[in-house]
Amino acid sequence: MPLTASVAIFNAPLESFQLDTFRISGLQPQEILVRNEYVTLCRSDLLTYLGKRTEKTPTLLGHEIVGRIAAMAEDAPQSDLLGQKLKVGDRVTWAIFASDPKSPMAQAGLPQKADDLFKYGHEAITPESHLHGGLSEYIILRKHTPIIKLDESIPLPVVTIINCAVATVAGALRLAEDLTGKNVLISGTGMLGIIACAMAKAKGAANVIALDINPQRLELTRQFGADYTLILPTEPQHLSAVAAEQLGQLPIHTMIDFSGAPDAIENGLELLAIGGTAIWIGSTYPQRNVQINAEKVVRKILTIKGLHNYNGQDLISAVDFIQKHHTVYPFERLVHSGFTLDQVDAAFQYAIENNPFRVGITL
Amino acid sequence: MPLTASVAIFNAPLESFQLDTFRISGLQPQEILVRNEYVTLCRSDLLTYLGKRTEKTPTLLGHEIVGRIAAMAEDAPQSDLLGQKLKVGDRVTWAIFASDPKSPMAQAGLPQKADDLFKYGHEAITPESHLHGGLSEYIILRKHTPIIKLDESIPLPVVTIINCAVATVAGALRLAEDLTGKNVLISGTGMLGIIACAMAKAKGAANVIALDINPQRLELTRQFGADYTLILPTEPQHLSAVAAEQLGQLPIHTMIDFSGAPDAIENGLELLAIGGTAIWIGSTYPQRNVQINAEKVVRKILTIKGLHNYNGQDLISAVDFIQKHHTVYPFERLVHSGFTLDQVDAAFQYAIENNPFRVGITL
Repeated sequence: MPLTASVAIFNAPLESFQLDTFRISGLQPQEILVRNEYVTLCRSDLLTYLGKRTEKTPTLLGHEIVGRIAAMAEDAPQSDLLGQKLKVGDRVTWAIFASDPKSPMAQAGLPQKADDLFKYGHEAITPESHLHGGLSEYIILRKHTPIIKLDESIPLPVVTIINCAVATVAGALRLAEDLTGKNVLISGTGMLGIIACAMAKAKGAANVIALDINPQRLELTRQFGADYTLILPTEPQHLSAVAAEQLGQLPIHTMIDFSGAPDAIENGLELLAIGGTAIWIGSTYPQRNVQINAEKVVRKILTIKGLHNYNGQDLISAVDFIQKHHTVYPFERLVHSGFTLDQVDAAFQYAIENNPFRVGITL
Repeated sequence: MPLTASVAIFNAPLESFQLDTFRISGLQPQEILVRNEYVTLCRSDLLTYLGKRTEKTPTLLGHEIVGRIAAMAEDAPQSDLLGQKLKVGDRVTWAIFASDPKSPMAQAGLPQKADDLFKYGHEAITPESHLHGGLSEYIILRKHTPIIKLDESIPLPVVTIINCAVATVAGALRLAEDLTGKNVLISGTGMLGIIACAMAKAKGAANVIALDINPQRLELTRQFGADYTLILPTEPQHLSAVAAEQLGQLPIHTMIDFSGAPDAIENGLELLAIGGTAIWIGSTYPQRNVQINAEKVVRKILTIKGLHNYNGQDLISAVDFIQKHHTVYPFERLVHSGFTLDQVDAAFQYAIENNPFRVGITL
């Protein structure tokens, strides 16, 4: 077992990361040591760096990660979520969380909300627990971490996005239920929205309509399965008119919002056909309240579902989706590669200044 | 087959009903003539009478009805939704709607929203179609009307409420899915809310909490299964504090709103535990928009479902519930009986002045 790990510690917003070396003191029961190979900077990492969200500090940021098993505790799980045997050297992805599968929340399908929740990339460094983020050469996966062994043929940047972006989208599409023959509006075409276009198509959607304020991002959605693109009008209440003009009579059965923007949420809800479903994912930061006409929700028999993070089943779906579609859609184009762990400051700078879908760091 | 039917025609708000006699001209294919026995005045009947909702006129109001089969077209359905044989003389209940079961909406489980929807008690009297309401000695059930034969031992006022109040509540509880061991908040304890208390208990709810502004109605909910009652505070934002004081740490898993009051909807939503579901039924009339913190919906993984009317499955559940529980809960107390068709003006007057849960008219 290796003895040390290079790490980049986050101490405070907008401060340089502190490059350091941690001792790997050994594994606790059921733990697995992973040699991180690649990490992509998720929006929440950037918001933490910018001070727009608060994280316990000091910490190791980065939770969208992939790596290879470096060592396993004697009683570590011998197989992954799919029953595939696990051994040292295997490339794996894992859930951003660990929680007791017997907890009431986990039993209700919400392991990401369990009382004993532990979230990789979001925990304070303590003497007892310090290798729990992606900006590190190694990470220790604690017991109750859902793990899946990966197909080695898929490029690293593509498998890296599985355990945050793709799995969260998989959760959204789980809530959307059967999409066969449905027309699906994807609102907000950042990383998750783009992936959602492709995944909705893969799930049998008849038409995928992408909605954003950014025409370049909308244009890209066409490479990821979008059949129509709509620019959110400056006066969002005009969205219905824009949609009528560009979509004709096409009914919108499902609307998935990744933007978190009240204007998009409100006006997207108006577009839904009778019996339609809205899934809200993007509202993870403070905004004004959304205004909803409850009579319309009732008379149109609409459903609204919120989702935060994802569960083990979604991780399985995400792996399955990427394994089946990584050659169909140009996922690699979504990740700007080229940084190493000692260039972490430059990587964050690049992400903030250029706003690519993801910046990737080779570890 | 009888030749004439006494009717009470609604022409305009607050005007006396016009007592008249209609000719029964015969049955179209697949139709069934029913001798109405009893009708209860639903809130929407009262709102139409008061001019607070608009109905096509002239019309026969009344859709919460029960009756006996008086005649059947040769090709009328020979059995009901449950496969029970239908014959002249059978007491039956039926859906408030008829619609083509092959229509896309019906196929999607929303027959009450089909393009060819026909709603009893809500259609204009025309030369071709005039016996379609409850304030009438007879009604003609058209093809594609879900019908269920009833147990004769249940009192008339109790079976009458099945096809609007009870079936709508059954729809709400269908959307609520499994309630076993759940704590359910029922907001608005009019007719539907009271029935919902009983039905939630019957579906295995651990605790039913009734919420209203009316202490007398709340008191009555205890006879219908409510374990706790909460008075909505004058400042509704204090509801969380009131709930904490009276319910302690009891998590609210499901909230079903029958009130349509934005204050109750907003503050009830705040009470929901992680993973909770809100079902909105009562918002069938114009109100201010409800204000929703989308971030809370996302982080708490909440679901909101609107429902208007019900489907055939809900009618089956409603009949089943009443047949199993009509001796358990005092449903008959909810209906103020004693009027006949020629006293229809007095019946509406009584309903408006005294606001009982239901006023019943013997036909």
